[in-house]
Amino acid sequence: MSIMDFQIDGLVAAPFTPMKDNGELNLSLIEPYVDYLVSQGVLNTFVCGSTGEGASLSMAERKMLAEKWVSAGKGKLTNVIVHVGGCSITDSQELARHAESIGAQAIASLPTCVFRPTTGKQVAEQLQIIGAAAPSLPLFYYHLPDMSKVNIMVEDLFDALETVKVPTFRGCKYTDYNMMDFGRCLVHSNGKYIMMYGRDEQGLCALVMGATSFVGSTFNYSGKVYNRMRAAYDNGDLEAARKEQNMSQHFLRILVQYGMDIGLNKYIMSMVSGMDFGPPRPPMQRRSEEELAKIKAKLQACGFFEAVK
Amino acid sequence: MSIMDFQIDGLVAAPFTPMKDNGELNLSLIEPYVDYLVSQGVLNTFVCGSTGEGASLSMAERKMLAEKWVSAGKGKLTNVIVHVGGCSITDSQELARHAESIGAQAIASLPTCVFRPTTGKQVAEQLQIIGAAAPSLPLFYYHLPDMSKVNIMVEDLFDALETVKVPTFRGCKYTDYNMMDFGRCLVHSNGKYIMMYGRDEQGLCALVMGATSFVGSTFNYSGKVYNRMRAAYDNGDLEAARKEQNMSQHFLRILVQYGMDIGLNKYIMSMVSGMDFGPPRPPMQRRSEEELAKIKAKLQACGFFEAVK
Amino acid sequence: MSIMDFQIDGLVAAPFTPMKDNGELNLSLIEPYVDYLVSQGVLNTFVCGSTGEGASLSMAERKMLAEKWVSAGKGKLTNVIVHVGGCSITDSQELARHAESIGAQAIASLPTCVFRPTTGKQVAEQLQIIGAAAPSLPLFYYHLPDMSKVNIMVEDLFDALETVKVPTFRGCKYTDYNMMDFGRCLVHSNGKYIMMYGRDEQGLCALVMGATSFVGSTFNYSGKVYNRMRAAYDNGDLEAARKEQNMSQHFLRILVQYGMDIGLNKYIMSMVSGMDFGPPRPPMQRRSEEELAKIKAKLQACGFFEAVK
Amino acid sequence: MSIMDFQIDGLVAAPFTPMKDNGELNLSLIEPYVDYLVSQGVLNTFVCGSTGEGASLSMAERKMLAEKWVSAGKGKLTNVIVHVGGCSITDSQELARHAESIGAQAIASLPTCVFRPTTGKQVAEQLQIIGAAAPSLPLFYYHLPDMSKVNIMVEDLFDALETVKVPTFRGCKYTDYNMMDFGRCLVHSNGKYIMMYGRDEQGLCALVMGATSFVGSTFNYSGKVYNRMRAAYDNGDLEAARKEQNMSQHFLRILVQYGMDIGLNKYIMSMVSGMDFGPPRPPMQRRSEEELAKIKAKLQACGFFEAVK
Repeated sequence: MSIMDFQIDGLVAAPFTPMKDNGELNLSLIEPYVDYLVSQGVLNTFVCGSTGEGASLSMAERKMLAEKWVSAGKGKLTNVIVHVGGCSITDSQELARHAESIGAQAIASLPTCVFRPTTGKQVAEQLQIIGAAAPSLPLFYYHLPDMSKVNIMVEDLFDALETVKVPTFRGCKYTDYNMMDFGRCLVHSNGKYIMMYGRDEQGLCALVMGATSFVGSTFNYSGKVYNRMRAAYDNGDLEAARKEQNMSQHFLRILVQYGMDIGLNKYIMSMVSGMDFGPPRPPMQRRSEEELAKIKAKLQACGFFEAVK
Repeated sequence: MSIMDFQIDGLVAAPFTPMKDNGELNLSLIEPYVDYLVSQGVLNTFVCGSTGEGASLSMAERKMLAEKWVSAGKGKLTNVIVHVGGCSITDSQELARHAESIGAQAIASLPTCVFRPTTGKQVAEQLQIIGAAAPSLPLFYYHLPDMSKVNIMVEDLFDALETVKVPTFRGCKYTDYNMMDFGRCLVHSNGKYIMMYGRDEQGLCALVMGATSFVGSTFNYSGKVYNRMRAAYDNGDLEAARKEQNMSQHFLRILVQYGMDIGLNKYIMSMVSGMDFGPPRPPMQRRSEEELAKIKAKLQACGFFEAVK
Repeated sequence: MSIMDFQIDGLVAAPFTPMKDNGELNLSLIEPYVDYLVSQGVLNTFVCGSTGEGASLSMAERKMLAEKWVSAGKGKLTNVIVHVGGCSITDSQELARHAESIGAQAIASLPTCVFRPTTGKQVAEQLQIIGAAAPSLPLFYYHLPDMSKVNIMVEDLFDALETVKVPTFRGCKYTDYNMMDFGRCLVHSNGKYIMMYGRDEQGLCALVMGATSFVGSTFNYSGKVYNRMRAAYDNGDLEAARKEQNMSQHFLRILVQYGMDIGLNKYIMSMVSGMDFGPPRPPMQRRSEEELAKIKAKLQACGFFEAVK
Repeated sequence: MSIMDFQIDGLVAAPFTPMKDNGELNLSLIEPYVDYLVSQGVLNTFVCGSTGEGASLSMAERKMLAEKWVSAGKGKLTNVIVHVGGCSITDSQELARHAESIGAQAIASLPTCVFRPTTGKQVAEQLQIIGAAAPSLPLFYYHLPDMSKVNIMVEDLFDALETVKVPTFRGCKYTDYNMMDFGRCLVHSNGKYIMMYGRDEQGLCALVMGATSFVGSTFNYSGKVYNRMRAAYDNGDLEAARKEQNMSQHFLRILVQYGMDIGLNKYIMSMVSGMDFGPPRPPMQRRSEEELAKIKAKLQACGFFEAVK
């Protein structure tokens, strides 16, 4: 299959990484996790990304985790995309090679952190190096400026790719708010590239701009909300679609008021799924039972638990 | 008419302020300017705001300009909203009183600059002081964090208004990218407040979230593009609506690549309208004929001049 | 006297603006205020700046205040420098003309706020316009990037002044932490320009780089601490100088922990001087008696009140 | 030796990492590099830090490099401090264990990147975890907010350490401009902790605040300039000390104008030392011969090459 044949539609969960109380990975949860996602109509995953605390894991852990997702997803998930970004581009190459060797469907990478590229051209040069390590895998740029502190316009990257050739480049996970840049990318090269939108709280805006694929953390436990939103949108019922987005904004507002981060989000996942995802790894913060009880009460009051059922 | 009876629908132009080569206001242009806006189906204006270089004008100039807009708009424009924000809340009170005395339909205010509020509650307290100076006029908060450096969530302001009473408060000009905050504000108090969206380049996203009014600078010369977008959206033809938004994103991308600011935008207005709006006031930069010629060529190539005709 | 003959040495207080409870200026306090400064060995003032809440005052208030300082300072103060910056360069020109007409010794200006210059050359162009309005007065650039959000290197401004001619330019009030830029400016043009340093909490660092003049808000009530620091430094007793700087850092740390802003600082001034400076103007916050009592106790514990006596 | 017995005085070079044209480490250069440092009176190194492109190296490379520095430095260098920070605290623990096993004198760590702590307490908790992996080694916090985007006050970390116990904590490499925070840390706990200052361009300011140790990248090739500065300062000749600091600011200004980063800095090192340090690793940029020739000419004109000889 050629790189450009890779397609993706609908929701892609950015899965949490289950951990034991002692901080070790709890890989035994991945299999039931796959089934849980499928039961919500979520058929793709983006693993070892920010939601998965990829940056907090060692190289060995990232490889084990990717392997487990690929094997557990076989026959159940459509795509497992492995995130390979980090501080060191040398490490990213190694993770890319590994992802190819285990049969992942695609890879993605943040720009290097600590030392950061500052232009679209520099990002393209990084992607060229990483992509070369996995020549058979579609490669996505992971745009997350709030965290990566790399504030390029992705359109500038797409322009740069016309001279800096990255044969495996397939598109972008766009986790930002600039819907003009996102819109421009969707029409760039006549829609040649795939734009997966990554801000769950305003996915409806991406839909109306023309998006058809979405990567997010809240799809892990509220995939049904977003799948209903998508179905309503596809049926031309914008009011119904907006109602689902409003629900998502309502519960996210509550989480934001309690200092939403991937640590808290992970606890919500445990609460909703009934599976124990364990604590986050530092620097993400553990939460007290007391705080979680308060959050639960607020989520109940807004109808969250009915909505995600 | 009570404050809550104030309604607004459709496009609100944030007009440029015509100036002579020596930097003085060119008020004689306002009357034909009104007609030019009306000819595009733009029936509301937001004057002395950022596009109007309000911050660069003296108090006397701001008053003259507001008066001219109110008188020239009589019988032609539905609403003239006068922006009264600046450094000094004392000055804002004076401008608010003045706007009321000349018969403006509403006022709006940025948070104070130089010394800036940092919470929704502090913004509410400022609005209380300003609103008290014009007790018969609907008051809007002007949210423009990129320029004001006041990065509150507007929902936090709305929450604060439940205790800090501002009887004339009517809503917000929301010029930012956070469509979750925007969406939350739209449903706050069951839609009690008016949310005018202010990022022309992604107005379609605000539409799908439920917005019905829009304030922008590019409506001055491309009101027809956005009115077509709105009409298509209202007819359920999202593809046609998206096509218009894509055109807006296309020409804005060109302008951004040439250092888009209100100075450049003003030249585009002169180019499209055929009226001479003169140079911007410092610190906004004058542009060379050479540079403008290049930009014109690029705009021509993308179909801009046909689109706005 | 030619512009380049203007000299200044030692401490320049950035005075607070006394206000009544109803928010009006309390000009009757200026005369005793002058005496209070002189009693601390503080012989220069920088009025209507950020400490003086200049941005919160109306044009009429700024003029009255400047006039009062010039008249009250006659025969007592060496220099009264009037800050003329704001949103509108037209207003700054008017304030510059006014400062010249009342006999101020010099003027200073922040870059325009709301619309901001972004390069040294643009700042130079602004200073050219402002300076032309007061051709007999030395003009200072007020560098305060934390508040102005204009993050140029002042050396870039000095370089730009070689082509953008500003005949009245005399130097800079440098209120930032970059001691390389500050040091470079001190040697620029063989020390042609005056560099007044504006971070009281690290004035000793400026001294060792070669500074001889300082503008600050804490000189209002702790001028003796800084004058002792200077004397010790001039005597080659660095340990004694450091001890004074450490005292200043100690009490500033306490104030920072309580949300130091000009509002709080004004209360400290009232506490120390025994004169009632009144509340700050919004958006600066009033403080409760309870909070002030806590702060007072902490200041007592660190020896602040003995140090400033 | 107990942790608190660890002392350090004078210059600590943050060494560049020599690489071959193919991007591999060139470890054979470390031995002559040690001699080159010693010849300048630089007797300590801080390896695998930002100057050493530590974040760009794989775990295996970081270990090899640290080992090489420890073995090459034996009998020649006083201290080799190994930087162990990165994305993953698990990796940092492994690097800390390794540093202890190879006989390094101390370790240091940036806060985790990608996921970042936001308070002094959170940083303390990270240091506790890392320190526990190398219980015999003094541990330093590496404060570099411009790069780490962790903008705490280090005094807040020191305060937090009174409850979050980190028995191996020994101080801080302070690479920032806030001389009040730096000064406060110097007097914290009566000077219990070591504060190594990290902004070469304003080391004189740190000296006057009481610093006695310094970590920097430009000490690699201009150690003599800074050692002369220190000697002059210790002799009470502040004018001579300032002259050396001014030279450092002069050449750094030139480098900054050419986009100073560790990539460029590495080339300067090759130019001055005559040893070939090779290219930087991406995302750091290679420089053209043409650009380097221009920079060389400017450095010549300012007397740089005589100063560092």
